[in-house]
Amino acid sequence: MTKSTSSMACVLITGFAPFGGEAINPSWQAVQKLDETIIMKHKICTLELACEFNTSISQLINTIESHNPAVVLCIGQAGGRSEISIERIAINVDDARIKDNAGNQPVDTPIEKNGPDAYFTNLPIKRMLQALHNSNIPAAISNTAGTYVCNHVMYGLMHYINDHCAVMKGGFVHIPYLPSQAVHHNGAPSMSEETVINALKVMVAQALNNNSDVKIAAGTTH
Amino acid sequence: MTKSTSSMACVLITGFAPFGGEAINPSWQAVQKLDETIIMKHKICTLELACEFNTSISQLINTIESHNPAVVLCIGQAGGRSEISIERIAINVDDARIKDNAGNQPVDTPIEKNGPDAYFTNLPIKRMLQALHNSNIPAAISNTAGTYVCNHVMYGLMHYINDHCAVMKGGFVHIPYLPSQAVHHNGAPSMSEETVINALKVMVAQALNNNSDVKIAAGTTH
Amino acid sequence: MTKSTSSMACVLITGFAPFGGEAINPSWQAVQKLDETIIMKHKICTLELACEFNTSISQLINTIESHNPAVVLCIGQAGGRSEISIERIAINVDDARIKDNAGNQPVDTPIEKNGPDAYFTNLPIKRMLQALHNSNIPAAISNTAGTYVCNHVMYGLMHYINDHCAVMKGGFVHIPYLPSQAVHHNGAPSMSEETVINALKVMVAQALNNNSDVKIAAGTTH
Amino acid sequence: MTKSTSSMACVLITGFAPFGGEAINPSWQAVQKLDETIIMKHKICTLELACEFNTSISQLINTIESHNPAVVLCIGQAGGRSEISIERIAINVDDARIKDNAGNQPVDTPIEKNGPDAYFTNLPIKRMLQALHNSNIPAAISNTAGTYVCNHVMYGLMHYINDHCAVMKGGFVHIPYLPSQAVHHNGAPSMSEETVINALKVMVAQALNNNSDVKIAAGTTH
Repeated sequence: MTKSTSSMACVLITGFAPFGGEAINPSWQAVQKLDETIIMKHKICTLELACEFNTSISQLINTIESHNPAVVLCIGQAGGRSEISIERIAINVDDARIKDNAGNQPVDTPIEKNGPDAYFTNLPIKRMLQALHNSNIPAAISNTAGTYVCNHVMYGLMHYINDHCAVMKGGFVHIPYLPSQAVHHNGAPSMSEETVINALKVMVAQALNNNSDVKIAAGTTH
Repeated sequence: MTKSTSSMACVLITGFAPFGGEAINPSWQAVQKLDETIIMKHKICTLELACEFNTSISQLINTIESHNPAVVLCIGQAGGRSEISIERIAINVDDARIKDNAGNQPVDTPIEKNGPDAYFTNLPIKRMLQALHNSNIPAAISNTAGTYVCNHVMYGLMHYINDHCAVMKGGFVHIPYLPSQAVHHNGAPSMSEETVINALKVMVAQALNNNSDVKIAAGTTH
Repeated sequence: MTKSTSSMACVLITGFAPFGGEAINPSWQAVQKLDETIIMKHKICTLELACEFNTSISQLINTIESHNPAVVLCIGQAGGRSEISIERIAINVDDARIKDNAGNQPVDTPIEKNGPDAYFTNLPIKRMLQALHNSNIPAAISNTAGTYVCNHVMYGLMHYINDHCAVMKGGFVHIPYLPSQAVHHNGAPSMSEETVINALKVMVAQALNNNSDVKIAAGTTH
Repeated sequence: MTKSTSSMACVLITGFAPFGGEAINPSWQAVQKLDETIIMKHKICTLELACEFNTSISQLINTIESHNPAVVLCIGQAGGRSEISIERIAINVDDARIKDNAGNQPVDTPIEKNGPDAYFTNLPIKRMLQALHNSNIPAAISNTAGTYVCNHVMYGLMHYINDHCAVMKGGFVHIPYLPSQAVHHNGAPSMSEETVINALKVMVAQALNNNSDVKIAAGTTH
């Protein structure tokens, strides 16, 4: 984690520790390369989150409170997806198909007992999508972040934003396997680290630049 | 639509009109075969919903109010999915990739202006899943019903239930193409009408039989 | 195996024993239901082949020689495919990703040392495809039967036909999982036994009825 | 096309012109970057083939005859595949689902009237596969190059090698869309140009270095 030594406004980007038997997590591989980069007068600070239900949200919120970022973008691995997936919504349930890195496997457990069923991201996801496409980067809006630690963290983030600080923008993005991972997953699509890093820069710039979104059809029939 | 002539308790199952260039909608093909069937002392009544944003919810609610069903199960086509998909949640947004049958294409429009971002179904979806598997019917929990008319109707249903009548159970199920449709969609999976009809019976029985659910891991990592 | 007691002309349809950890093989489940059926004045005789490189071809040829069928149609399981797959060609190599039921795993071994690299089927595959589509059964031409026991048997069959008896027609068809199998393969497509049995009847009739094929585009760009 | 001005031994790598409505073909995008590169004392010469049944083979053979390459590696686009696909075999049939760039659409037409049904490549495909995996590049053996111009050219190449010059090694490799193409194909996987170029270098080195192959299981059950 970067220390908050400067008074410059910042953006927090998080990646995850490896899970599910992988040696690496492509989210942290890409995110750490952006540490201390400057995008539109904002310094990027980065954080590797534990892939654990019990600790990941508090880890994230501690860093938010010490850094007070303008934008929080959490990144996670979506093995099997082929595109940058910009998540639209986080839902208030943990339903883990496999154990997390601490050995926990919550099933049908609410993330926040009295929280609403879901929170939409407040990022300008359609502008982000459009900018990625203009940069020749395959991307889509996703309407589910799953029910594992990724969704868990996104829900925790949006719950915090809604409770504390309406001006902070936050959301979640899933990325494909790296090619080095796909080698071990017969037929799985992948995306190069360079493309992912470019995608992160493009999305952060859009998030900083826009307080409202455009209406571009990018839904699914099911 | 069946007339509410008897005093027998009932279950409402809806299907949709064809859309997106299809000649049929597998949901209505299957649902209409169950009309007036008796399952666990409940009569099945059925309704074909228009595939239209503007009219589908009010059509559904009118029939709910005239029939007062114990369970409402809405069924829709998910071309490209291979299994019975039991939807966990409906989200408060229309984002239509194609026009509906009335020519409307809402984009990033809330379904209920002051409604919450999402509603979980109150059906015992894990018991339904388990019972389908025990009946040798491929099925899964889905965490997104899309952003088209299916999600729209599910959101409208759950909004109505939450506003009016906590005792009514309701939810949404997506089904694959019929084989006759898959012939025209290169490589698309399908499910026979017989299997779909059996699946509907199995799910209705579970919905009638259970006021609480079991906790069985059936989530996704993304 | 059916005894060759009558003088009626016959069609031989084979299925396989289960392999790869499955409890059943959908090919034999469907094929055995057709035993002794009459299609166009031909009696169907059926045979369950071992899923073994060393014995399957000789099993098949023994039955061909005792029954002298007009058409030989071998059926195999293609878990993960969604359609009836009519195989166009068999290739002269075994490259087994998993052991067969006798524990053998040949890799890059020719099936016939001095055989040609491949044999096209001599079935009217485009007429069969067209007839399946007209019967509302999802189907496609496949240009690879893999490199496991299915391709092995198809190559052995076509090698025998080319060496011995140009008048006999033979080929191979892959079928999807049954629904009861797909339950155990997260997201895998399936096809009902009724649909598979209908497909077999449709294909046998076309094979008996046509000595030449029609030219209908059904290829792939890669 | 590069002129054959030097006496240095060479390797011929071909790409294709765009087809099927694409603005570019990733095969030629990558291949042209290698022109005049030296790999293991062999100069790379490159050629863009027309995506036309009538002219592509003669274009290829003219260049082979003027350059006398030690290895010929033909590259083509496989939109929808996620990996480098090393083709094992070419089959003696054109079955075009869409017209080629000259407006021709042969259906079930043999490529060589008196040619065998198929030819295996004589490249060391398992060593190439292993070397790609060791370089962290997703790759697989493919048992069908389709029935369009790619298979047509591979068949023409292997027919020429078998007729004329047993010492020349030749084969075909399919590559995914570039990211810039995948943007326009909802959900399609892609591979960066850098990764493809690296893959080509790795495969050429293996082809030059090995006159025999290793036996590594890399087949498919169907």
